Amino acid sequence: MAVEKPSVEKAVTHFDQHRNDHLKDLMHLVRIPSVSFAGFPPSEVVRSAEAVAELLAARGLEEVSVLTLEGAHPYVYGEWCKAPGKPTLLLYAHHDVQPPGDAELWKTRPFEPTVCDGRLFGRGAADDKAGIVAHTAAISSYLQSSGRLPINVKLIIEGEEEIGSEHLHEFLAKQRENLQADVMVLADAGNFDTGLPSLTVSLRGLVLVEAEVRSIDHSLHSGMWGGPIPDPVGALSKMLASLLDDEGRIAIRGIYDRVRPLTSQEREDYARLDVTEALFRKQTGMAPGARILGGAKNPYETIWRQPALTINAIQASSRDQARNIICDSAWARVGIRIVPDQRPEEVRDLLVSHLEANVPWGVEATIRPLLADSWWMTDPTGPVFEKARRAFSAGYGKETVFIGCGGSIPFVGPFSEALGGAPALLIGVEDPYTNAHGENESLSLIDFEGAVRSSIHLFSMLAE
Amino acid sequence: MAVEKPSVEKAVTHFDQHRNDHLKDLMHLVRIPSVSFAGFPPSEVVRSAEAVAELLAARGLEEVSVLTLEGAHPYVYGEWCKAPGKPTLLLYAHHDVQPPGDAELWKTRPFEPTVCDGRLFGRGAADDKAGIVAHTAAISSYLQSSGRLPINVKLIIEGEEEIGSEHLHEFLAKQRENLQADVMVLADAGNFDTGLPSLTVSLRGLVLVEAEVRSIDHSLHSGMWGGPIPDPVGALSKMLASLLDDEGRIAIRGIYDRVRPLTSQEREDYARLDVTEALFRKQTGMAPGARILGGAKNPYETIWRQPALTINAIQASSRDQARNIICDSAWARVGIRIVPDQRPEEVRDLLVSHLEANVPWGVEATIRPLLADSWWMTDPTGPVFEKARRAFSAGYGKETVFIGCGGSIPFVGPFSEALGGAPALLIGVEDPYTNAHGENESLSLIDFEGAVRSSIHLFSMLAE
Repeated sequence: MAVEKPSVEKAVTHFDQHRNDHLKDLMHLVRIPSVSFAGFPPSEVVRSAEAVAELLAARGLEEVSVLTLEGAHPYVYGEWCKAPGKPTLLLYAHHDVQPPGDAELWKTRPFEPTVCDGRLFGRGAADDKAGIVAHTAAISSYLQSSGRLPINVKLIIEGEEEIGSEHLHEFLAKQRENLQADVMVLADAGNFDTGLPSLTVSLRGLVLVEAEVRSIDHSLHSGMWGGPIPDPVGALSKMLASLLDDEGRIAIRGIYDRVRPLTSQEREDYARLDVTEALFRKQTGMAPGARILGGAKNPYETIWRQPALTINAIQASSRDQARNIICDSAWARVGIRIVPDQRPEEVRDLLVSHLEANVPWGVEATIRPLLADSWWMTDPTGPVFEKARRAFSAGYGKETVFIGCGGSIPFVGPFSEALGGAPALLIGVEDPYTNAHGENESLSLIDFEGAVRSSIHLFSMLAE
Repeated sequence: MAVEKPSVEKAVTHFDQHRNDHLKDLMHLVRIPSVSFAGFPPSEVVRSAEAVAELLAARGLEEVSVLTLEGAHPYVYGEWCKAPGKPTLLLYAHHDVQPPGDAELWKTRPFEPTVCDGRLFGRGAADDKAGIVAHTAAISSYLQSSGRLPINVKLIIEGEEEIGSEHLHEFLAKQRENLQADVMVLADAGNFDTGLPSLTVSLRGLVLVEAEVRSIDHSLHSGMWGGPIPDPVGALSKMLASLLDDEGRIAIRGIYDRVRPLTSQEREDYARLDVTEALFRKQTGMAPGARILGGAKNPYETIWRQPALTINAIQASSRDQARNIICDSAWARVGIRIVPDQRPEEVRDLLVSHLEANVPWGVEATIRPLLADSWWMTDPTGPVFEKARRAFSAGYGKETVFIGCGGSIPFVGPFSEALGGAPALLIGVEDPYTNAHGENESLSLIDFEGAVRSSIHLFSMLAE
């Protein structure tokens, strides 16, 4: 019996008619406070995994199961593999979320999804429960309208992405056969602007260290003892100040040596992005007088393709408890985002050595490496990327751009490796106003609809 | 009827026989948690004032009263003025105490006085309830043995010293006639070493500012945005690093211009102090490799006679909450201890201007002055200081030293002024191991006894 070819037009029409059902699926997931951080109830992440499994089954996926591993928040698996001879896509998203943050800063309740001004507000509304529902909505739209998909799909929905995907390697090793696929679609990235379809082709890596400086074994009265005793806060300030030059660039010798120069293709891609200083200042909330550092015409070139050093936190005594003391110690955490072709361990070692070499006054300094994760970059040429570009242009009704991302998604590298280098398409629904991880996280409904329609087109194009 | 001259020998003998009664008086006061800080029950400070008034009356003082002022913790007054023609001493101490601090670090309970290894442990055991009892013990020893004192005394026991003596000016203005005296004895200072009688002749002043740096209106993901945005923590580090030179001296132009050179007498006094580097390191708990800064042979010369800059506290995000963010702001509090002849407002303005001049990258910086209190110094020559020197040498059985103090006691200046410049004797029982304001505060019983015997001698000598 000849099987009718699934129709992309029917699927898109079906989605347009049933958009609200999928939005309800998303709202249902957002209501579950599946915060994976220590100190939050893991039972909610379990509840969230169960809700995701129910959703997958309800939307027509098969072999649905909740995957557990000792000490890990549960992952969820589902598949539809009834298109023999057609490619298999591995679809990824995660169902865990960040802590809500400061309750007073939320204008709505974080776990009560609320639509306002064309956006859905709530923790996880974008990052990354929208990623889950973008997958299920595309799949369901085909199954409901044509009874089948044009390709095979396997879904893996992670439960510990926000805490570093600690067990991902183990899951991938255990599920390696299950997960074999020709293309990966990771729905946890974003669009360059609202409604502007974007494929992310690079991520920065991350090196983290903490520095602790100590000169006395207990805090002393700053009047009774101030003068002969080296101030640990002053010492740490000098060490940290030496890390950045007058232009805000990293002042560690040799740190830029391996940075891969931009290709002419990258220069063209960046030149096509319409970025004004005013827009960038609006997106970031920069103080009016603050300089845009980095020297590039386009600040995104700096974010995507240059290493950047940030002091994420510093503390000695505290603002609340400030007293007339010489602090016994001072502490800070320093991160460097790294780019092709920097080597994580080498950058880590350069940072540690630089800090150690700049300790003044003989104070005790302990520099502890915390993390050294690699950057990721793909070559977005070849048929898969060309099809994806066309699918997303069709789905959003706008020309697709290839962008970088300044952040890190540590699982992309291992995922790609586990699948023997299958092309990875990083897509997603976060626009510059999403405020993922911050308060008042929100999803643009334009991006949500665009992502679903693009996936519908993508399934069809990759089947050809 | 000729009145018998009060006998210093009888008084000393009486004290030696009744030392424990006075120690019990002290322990009774220590049991009352008279913490004057906001957030602690003011009723305990009232209870403490009442206990002090009872003690004064029980030990033979007259006209005892609890002095109250709207919004102030109560002061206590008492006098014995039955030696016509003899000088009048104004004796000062305070009955309020610091908060206990970290309960886990106390080896005994802070408000349960405990004798161990020749020291009395407890909050206020030294600072400054021992000051109160040193006064009452000396007075009582005369009254019990000779029936009278060789001089007139007026006691003022403050209840708000630990929170800055905010109402002292008002009290002094209100009580000006009551408080007229020829000499002040302020028992709130310390000895250079355990059992080494010391008269404090200088105090440093204090200038405080807080600095806040801001470059964005909310914290941003350091991966997504790191590079073009000036890091507020890096900016603050650069500003603070510029305050101290490679030798740990203050690197603000002009800050040392007015510092009064040491006199040859001071040089002699300092040379007499037996200070080794090993002792100083032991007293302060300095890290083995940390350099002793300041350049002086004697670190106390640096503490007493050189300005010193300390960053009392710094914070951006926090050690507990450290995340991958660019902090929206960073904050620090900076203090400079000032010495003769520096001018508080001038030092404050120099500090503010220096910080403002060193703000990098156009970030927003707000520098707020918090305090500008003056130094104090007396000329320890003339008969009163000579008699005091002899009295303390007799009381402790050791040669008295004249010392400075790196801390500030803001009421000394106003007190001296209110009494038309009467000589001020700063004495006290804190030795380098007292750990006043810290956990495990303790009083050396050698210092306690020495202070009482010295006061007995002092009353007698000043009567001559």
